[in-house]
Amino acid sequence: MATDIQAALDLIGRGAEEIIKREDLLERLKQNRPLRIKAGFDPTAPDLHLGHTVLLNKMRQFQDLGHQVIFLIGDFTGMIGDPTGKNATRKPLSREDIQANAKTYADQVFKVLDRDKTEVRFNSEWFGKMDAAGMIKLAAKHTVARMLERDDFAKRYKGNQPIAIHEFLYPLVQGYDSVALECDVELGGTDQKFNLLVGRQLQEEAGQPPQIVLTMPLLEGLDGVHKMSKSLGNYIGIDEPAIDIVNKTMKIGDDLMWRWYELLSLDRSVADIAAMKSDVVSGRLHPRDAKLALARELATRFQGAAEAARATEQWNALVREQRVDVDLPLLDIPVPAQGIRVAPLFVAAGLASSNSELTRKLNERAVRIDGAVVEDRERILVPGGEHLLQVGKRAFARVRLVSA
Amino acid sequence: MATDIQAALDLIGRGAEEIIKREDLLERLKQNRPLRIKAGFDPTAPDLHLGHTVLLNKMRQFQDLGHQVIFLIGDFTGMIGDPTGKNATRKPLSREDIQANAKTYADQVFKVLDRDKTEVRFNSEWFGKMDAAGMIKLAAKHTVARMLERDDFAKRYKGNQPIAIHEFLYPLVQGYDSVALECDVELGGTDQKFNLLVGRQLQEEAGQPPQIVLTMPLLEGLDGVHKMSKSLGNYIGIDEPAIDIVNKTMKIGDDLMWRWYELLSLDRSVADIAAMKSDVVSGRLHPRDAKLALARELATRFQGAAEAARATEQWNALVREQRVDVDLPLLDIPVPAQGIRVAPLFVAAGLASSNSELTRKLNERAVRIDGAVVEDRERILVPGGEHLLQVGKRAFARVRLVSA
Repeated sequence: MATDIQAALDLIGRGAEEIIKREDLLERLKQNRPLRIKAGFDPTAPDLHLGHTVLLNKMRQFQDLGHQVIFLIGDFTGMIGDPTGKNATRKPLSREDIQANAKTYADQVFKVLDRDKTEVRFNSEWFGKMDAAGMIKLAAKHTVARMLERDDFAKRYKGNQPIAIHEFLYPLVQGYDSVALECDVELGGTDQKFNLLVGRQLQEEAGQPPQIVLTMPLLEGLDGVHKMSKSLGNYIGIDEPAIDIVNKTMKIGDDLMWRWYELLSLDRSVADIAAMKSDVVSGRLHPRDAKLALARELATRFQGAAEAARATEQWNALVREQRVDVDLPLLDIPVPAQGIRVAPLFVAAGLASSNSELTRKLNERAVRIDGAVVEDRERILVPGGEHLLQVGKRAFARVRLVSA
Repeated sequence: MATDIQAALDLIGRGAEEIIKREDLLERLKQNRPLRIKAGFDPTAPDLHLGHTVLLNKMRQFQDLGHQVIFLIGDFTGMIGDPTGKNATRKPLSREDIQANAKTYADQVFKVLDRDKTEVRFNSEWFGKMDAAGMIKLAAKHTVARMLERDDFAKRYKGNQPIAIHEFLYPLVQGYDSVALECDVELGGTDQKFNLLVGRQLQEEAGQPPQIVLTMPLLEGLDGVHKMSKSLGNYIGIDEPAIDIVNKTMKIGDDLMWRWYELLSLDRSVADIAAMKSDVVSGRLHPRDAKLALARELATRFQGAAEAARATEQWNALVREQRVDVDLPLLDIPVPAQGIRVAPLFVAAGLASSNSELTRKLNERAVRIDGAVVEDRERILVPGGEHLLQVGKRAFARVRLVSA
């Protein structure tokens, strides 16, 4: 095997959960042409977090290897919405909604993808032209029994939870996209495996070589246990300020750090990471510095090198050197005209979860306003002032008190 | 309740297996307007037998009551064919095929239906305009679990026989026809009950009053046991010559005769039939004469009064009066140059199922050729001759021996 093909295989396989089939991928890579790599995205308003970028990174790696990446927006089903009308959050999207969401996607994903090497497509392009008879023919390509083998469907069917028939059509719609786009490879999360395999099947029936299916694992969130998600709050949004990206990353555990390196770093090769790990083990590298390097890479990707540098410095300043005169974002806290007491102010600034927690911190003399330990816990702060609040060594907030 | 509504209810209910719901039907009849009565038919080449006319008769009764009958040809799915490609007999039909089949239908069904009171429709009219998104929305109207409750699907699913997903769409297509046509009543065989109920549901969801579902039983065939069907050979086709309609009808059992009266007679009311039955019990009417009246009604409907009269006379001539010089259809029997023996000739003419059966009849002196009892069972008949063959009192065939 040529060295470059082996290197490509290694990069493509990095962090992947499964490749179906690896020998097909090898075969395809040997054809020495740009492969067509598809990943599908919901047409709903995107607000991406690091978890979503695992897939984007894999797409980027394919781009770096010279392949053609297709960013497919599944607007066709989005424009239908939830036809059962039971799901208020899945209202039909208008063409304008879709366009707006696509623009938001672009703003976000091109922080990872190479814009010039990305083909953005919408599946309404072919499904908008398909008639009812075409959909019936598509529905004929799969059986009820096989669809009911899919984990989530199986669970719902056994649990007597209704499955509307059109839900059986969506995997076929997704699979047909691969036929329309003549994909070589489709990427998706592990939860998408069934749907990706449908694409394989439909391509075979259409006389195309079946696509290689590559699944990526779901990224663990800040807690290191659950998958990163908005609803669990264990996420880093890619539009967050650099300082937040850095601060949050710096709080993850060391094991998770290495996992994130594997799935999130584009700058460090597998070999680089192995070397860093070994340096940490031997004591040549402090894990905090390894983590800061990762934090800086992520902040650079999403907020640019300058912001990332500033955030890294700020983290150093705040946490390492205990300096507090840094440029923290300014938080507006509405307070009544008669002013606010210390405890509710710190709660409002997010530095304590309750008045009683703050009282404990006051007892420990760990609460500072503008650098000075708070002695008078009955102190009243009135609207108009700007203050630097601090609890312990690491928790800061810069607030402006505005009239409620 | 007005007498005419009661009379209408009685006529509509005659022979019906089930009416869902009877009170809805009563309510609808009281509206004193022509109701829209739908029955759907396959767009495949029709070759109707008496079994099919059970439904046509019910349609005719609605017409006679002043209602609007819709003869719906399901050409939309017919033009798709069997999309799995597994069923060679369900090839996609072209528009020309459909038109030709519709004409054949017309030739046949207007022997029962009043042409002027029949609206012939094709469901491609509305489904031809529906797009893929419309089909997905339609698919959302029903759940997988409810579809799997349908007897035949349940059986196939449990028996691990594949059900393609588009098969779940067809009941919805059929049901949507009722929405498009704003039907008041849909008629069908008992095997159609599930599909007819889907129409009820879709109409309700579309804000229409749900159609009344009226199912008719499947007609027992000549054997009096199995449902009439081509494949069992126990049928009378509506294009058969009057003499065959009469001869076959005259061979059915007396119980089946009364069943046929109920489901197939349009001339005799329920009261008429009850009176005939009572006359047969009391001996005032010979069952053979009751049967001949039924045979004549059927022959008249499908071949006209003159043909029916001739066929009835012919049956009388042949069977009652033992006259044999009548106009039977001439059957060509290929025989080898050296001629054919009596037993195989009668088997070839369909008058005996085996040589040994014919031999028994010969022993009973029940076999005649050209009116004379066959004494010489070794007799050889050579090509070129025409003969009248007879077994017992009722079985005749006129044959021409041709060179094999």
